[in-house]
Formats: sequence, C-alpha cells, structure tokens
Amino acid sequence: MQNGTNPPITPGLEGVVAAETRLSSVNGQIGELIIAGFAVEELGNKATFEETAYLLWYGHLPDRHELLDFKARLVTLRTLPPATLHLLKVVATQKVPAMDALRMAAGTLNLGLSNSHEEAALALTARLPTIVAAYWRLLHGQEAIEPDPTLDHAANYLTMLNGKRPSASQVRGLETYLNTVVDHGLNASTFAARVIISTQSDVVSAVVGAIGALKGPLHGGAPGPALDMVFEIGSADRAESYLRAKLERGERLMGFGHRVYKVRDPRAEVLAQAAAQMFQAGGDMTLYELVKAVEGTAVSLLAEYKPGRNLQTNVEFYTALLLHGLGLETDLFTPTFAIGRVAGWIAHCFEQVKYGRLIRPQSAYVGERDRQWLPLQER
Amino acid sequence: MQNGTNPPITPGLEGVVAAETRLSSVNGQIGELIIAGFAVEELGNKATFEETAYLLWYGHLPDRHELLDFKARLVTLRTLPPATLHLLKVVATQKVPAMDALRMAAGTLNLGLSNSHEEAALALTARLPTIVAAYWRLLHGQEAIEPDPTLDHAANYLTMLNGKRPSASQVRGLETYLNTVVDHGLNASTFAARVIISTQSDVVSAVVGAIGALKGPLHGGAPGPALDMVFEIGSADRAESYLRAKLERGERLMGFGHRVYKVRDPRAEVLAQAAAQMFQAGGDMTLYELVKAVEGTAVSLLAEYKPGRNLQTNVEFYTALLLHGLGLETDLFTPTFAIGRVAGWIAHCFEQVKYGRLIRPQSAYVGERDRQWLPLQER
Repeated sequence: MQNGTNPPITPGLEGVVAAETRLSSVNGQIGELIIAGFAVEELGNKATFEETAYLLWYGHLPDRHELLDFKARLVTLRTLPPATLHLLKVVATQKVPAMDALRMAAGTLNLGLSNSHEEAALALTARLPTIVAAYWRLLHGQEAIEPDPTLDHAANYLTMLNGKRPSASQVRGLETYLNTVVDHGLNASTFAARVIISTQSDVVSAVVGAIGALKGPLHGGAPGPALDMVFEIGSADRAESYLRAKLERGERLMGFGHRVYKVRDPRAEVLAQAAAQMFQAGGDMTLYELVKAVEGTAVSLLAEYKPGRNLQTNVEFYTALLLHGLGLETDLFTPTFAIGRVAGWIAHCFEQVKYGRLIRPQSAYVGERDRQWLPLQER
Repeated sequence: MQNGTNPPITPGLEGVVAAETRLSSVNGQIGELIIAGFAVEELGNKATFEETAYLLWYGHLPDRHELLDFKARLVTLRTLPPATLHLLKVVATQKVPAMDALRMAAGTLNLGLSNSHEEAALALTARLPTIVAAYWRLLHGQEAIEPDPTLDHAANYLTMLNGKRPSASQVRGLETYLNTVVDHGLNASTFAARVIISTQSDVVSAVVGAIGALKGPLHGGAPGPALDMVFEIGSADRAESYLRAKLERGERLMGFGHRVYKVRDPRAEVLAQAAAQMFQAGGDMTLYELVKAVEGTAVSLLAEYKPGRNLQTNVEFYTALLLHGLGLETDLFTPTFAIGRVAGWIAHCFEQVKYGRLIRPQSAYVGERDRQWLPLQER
C-alpha cells in the first residue's frame, strides 16, 4: 500500500479508537480520570484494592457478601505454586531485575489451574504481590514469607515484603496508590493484553505480555529520578537555584509533563493527599513539605522556561514520594505498579472476550519486490 | 468520546495502517505474499531457515562468510539454560499443553544473556526448537536430547524430537514450512510483539507476548481438524458424498477460507509442492493424492454451496499434510508454527526499535459517570 488514496499510516495509533470501554476514561484536556464511573478523586482514597478490582471486573461495588466471597477466593490463591517459587529462587541467584523475574514467574501462574478465565484472573491478582515480595527477599538473601490468610491484599504485600505488619495509614497509602494506577485507558500494556486475548488466548498469556510492555521505560516509567532530584535539592531554599540551573542547561525535569495530560494529572493530587496523610500519621512531614516546595518552584519555573507548554506534575512525582514513604526501594516501583494495574489488565481482558474481535491492523509495505534467488556460491 | 465528530471506532483495527514495514507484504486480493522482497514461491523451497532469518533481520541474503558466522552463533546458543530445562521437567509432570510450556520456558530465555537485542534474538531463534523438542519428549516420559552442533536448525529440531536424523527431503520439507510461515504482515502475534517492544522493553518480553497471542485458536489456528476430515473421508471416491453431507448440515469445512486471502493462499501451493516432493522421496503418495482429491472436490462444492464467496484452500490445509508427513502429532503443529514465526517477530522488533514509536491507541468511554461512593454497610 502507498499513501494517497490509501489510509494514512499511524505508527503510534494516535487518535485511532481501538475499543469501547466501560473501565476508564482519560480526558487529558481537563485532567479527568474516571474509573468505572467514579472520578479517581472519589474512589482513590476510599476503596480497598479488593473493592476496586471487583468494581472493574463486575461493574458495581461489592456488597458485604460479595466482598467476603471475593476476598476468600483471593486468600486461597495467594500462595505460589512450588514450581513458581523454585523458579524465583534460581532467578534470584542470577540477580535478574525484578520486572523480568515478575514476568517469568507470572508466566507459570496457570500451573494447577483450570482453563477458567476468572480463576486465572483471581490467581494473577492474588499472586503478583507474593511473587514480587518473595523475589525481593530472595534477591537480598532472605527467606520468602508466606502470605497471611488473615490479612487483606495490600497489608499482605507489605508484610511479605518487610517481614512486619504495616500501620493502618501505610495500608491506606498503598491501597490509594494501587487504586490510582489500576486503569488508564488503552495504554501500551493494556492494549498488548487486549491484542493477545483477542485471539481467544488466555488471561495469563495476556497479563504476561502486559508485564513485558510495562517493563519498558517509555511506559512503566522511571519514578525514581523524580525523587532523586528532590533528595539532591535537599532543602526548600535550594530548589529555585538548583532547578533554574538545570533548566538553563536544557535538561528535563523528571516528574513533569505527560503525553496525555495537558493540565495537572488528576492522580497527582490523589497521591499527594494520600502521602500527606501517611507522613502525618508517621509523624514526620519534612520530606512531604520539601516535595511540595520543589513542585511549586518547578511548575512556575517551567512556565517561565517553557511558556505555553503548561508542564504540570505527573503521576511519577507523587508515586515516588508515596512508595518511598512506604519503605519501597526504587527497583520495586514498577513491579508495584504492576500489582495495581493487573486488575485493570484483567478487566480489559474480560471486556475484550465479551465484546471484542481479533485485533489485526494493516501494514504498508515499503520494501523491495521481485527479488530473484541467488545460490550461496554466487553471492 | 462519542461517535459523530469523533473518530470512528475500529475494534479489530481493520483498515488501520499501524506500521511501515520492509518485511512482508500480503495482498489478499491477488494472492500475493512477499517476504523481504521475494515472492514466497521464489524463497520458500530454496532458502534454509537460517538464510531466511538472516534475510529478514539484515535485509539481504547472507554470503558464505556471513552465513557461517550466523550459524555458528546459533549453535552456541542452542542448548537451554539449566533453569529452563528444569522448568520444563516440572511443567511436563502437570501435562500442560505444549504452547503453554513453550510460553513459560521462552520467558526464561534471557537468563545468562546480556541486554543486547541481537543476542536475545539469536537465543530465542536457536532455543525455541530445543524447548519444543525437549518438552515433547519429557511429556512422553523420554529424556530430552541435546542439540547436535554439527546439524543445522531444521535438522536439529527433528533430531531432538524423534531421536533420529531426518532424511534430506524431510529437512527440506520442514525448512520450506518454516520459511512459508515466517512472516505475514501485522498478524495479532506480530502486532503484540511490536506493541510490547514499542515501550523500549526487550525482545524476550515481546516474543513471549507473541507466543501468548499465537496460542489463541483465532490465530495459531487449528490445522489438525483439516487433516482429521481427510482421514475420515479415507478414499477419494468418498469425498463428494462426505463433503456434500457436511455442507448440507451447514457445517464449516476446516482448511478453507481466510480473513485476508480472497483467492488461493499463495502459501498453500508452496506447501503442497513441498509435501509432494517429500512424500515422493518417501515412496508413498497415497495420502498426498487423497488430499489433492479432497481439496478439488471441496473447492468445487464450496463454489456450489457458497456462491460468490470464493472459498479456497488456506495455509492450514497443507500445513497439516506436511507436518503430518514429518511425523509430527497435531499438538506440535502450533509450536512448530512458532519456531518459524519467531524470526518474523524478531525482525518486526528490530524494525519497531529502529523506526517505531510508542503504540498507544485511544478508547471510547461508554460507561457511567459521576458515581458516588457508598460505604460497605450501605450497599
């Protein structure tokens, strides 16, 4: 195909509407994110992660009976199959990055399951935190910790990771984070999951593909550098001179600007409030206040240096603050993102299975034609 | 977004051109498939699989030196990492289908490698046959067979699978099959690979996603049933009555018709000729002749029962004949498809890395808005 009478080539699929969805709506012009009918500001700091997953998968908030049942099913699936744990042990000896280990281990999660999409969905949601926590401990020479059937999802993750029970405000902080990143339109990982399951493949295959996509720095992002910058600045009175020097050198400020959001990312505010509550409960607001000061200075300097661009805080900036406040190291940020987003990937799989069809775009051939074979000795 | 002034919704991305490519061109109206400049009829039965992979990755047929070097690099990578083989042993005890085992094992293939895309590409291409052959033997209570460094790619696969060296005509038959299915535009698995690597992720992640997509019956297909039908028919004189009865009952004939090809799939002829040569060399043309007779009868009956549809033989029909002739059981057909297609997936990854950008389409939100939170006790 050539251009002209033929359709235009859209290599990033910008502006192409590839699906109808009831799961989330992103409006970057007005800074709006709707998750299954709720503004992210309404849902983020109220729902438990189990409630959010249930909402996305079944379309309504669970009543007491539904929630108990849902949580009970997650509890029974939280422990890893022995083959998965063994694989993590071997992989840890090779110091593989956590996202690769997560992708490898997640790929084995249909071991021992039926072919039910729902069972795979529950197993993946339940076990991703178990994998990440176990791998992190194995990587640091510690024993993996078994999930605790008396703890809910977010509390279990932190307990398996740190070996001690988190405070209520830490659990709330993590749940708000997981809710906030649970779904975001047809981002690349979600779209990869939909392409895979559109062939009538299975949910594990789709989620493994999505983890592979999330791993890429253009998607899973690099929430570490935003906070590194804050630490380098160190105190609020140094923010302006530091940031101005950086901008004068033509450097990018990490944590500001987004391909979709042209105003402030609505998730930033939800995460900022969650971080404030968590640090307040912990009794030390120093870092939080420094971050707020750096944000304010950065946004006004960006308006000065990049007029008309309206570069605002993105989700990475407060993600870093919140996850750091939970005691998570930078290498755990993207795996923890996956632990939240998996519920969205699965909801999209369900939707694709129900309403979708095989996803198969066209390509435009721009290569040679009519090449003739030459035997090896004549080349 | 709503319809109207907004872009149309294309849930299967039909007619959307998502990439320029130099790798393959599919023209379903005239039954043309070009692979890196060569008509499939020109390349299919001449190139070794190593030559085809090299051609797709580097844009030209290798000279003697380049080919020796390429083959030598594949030889050094053909043996599986111990963790991969161990995983296959565990998985075999659970009788997991071969495509799932292939996906799980392929996910571990970057163990011990650098971050080089090219090294991962070579390792995946070299090791997919080793995985499939090892798993098949383990599944049947046999020991896995090590790759033989003196054998080329296709011969190695058959030897590791069957425990004995194949004939020259069998190797030629398999190479023609692998070449014929090596690339086919932006099919769902190839597109999944491109979406994944578009985030700047890695080649193993992309190929694992592609294997997951290929597994789906809408894509990897079901070449088994086409041949089952031929066996049920049993002799040419029964073909018409059998097929007519099937069509009278409104049943579909497996192996005929294709979403893209409106005339005979050009791969069908290449595979038919390869099968003819192989069966001729083997000294028994009975099955081949039966298949030809069934095809002829089926095509004319389809013209009678489905006028105007022009339903022709597709790739699955002769795939089944050829792979059956190689002694492969039906459950090995889709994994063997993956062994060929992996070179195409990787070529698309290279192209995406070089020319592509993040693939992120839009979705149209059709769900609720302004939902208000209700505490659990009020639901």
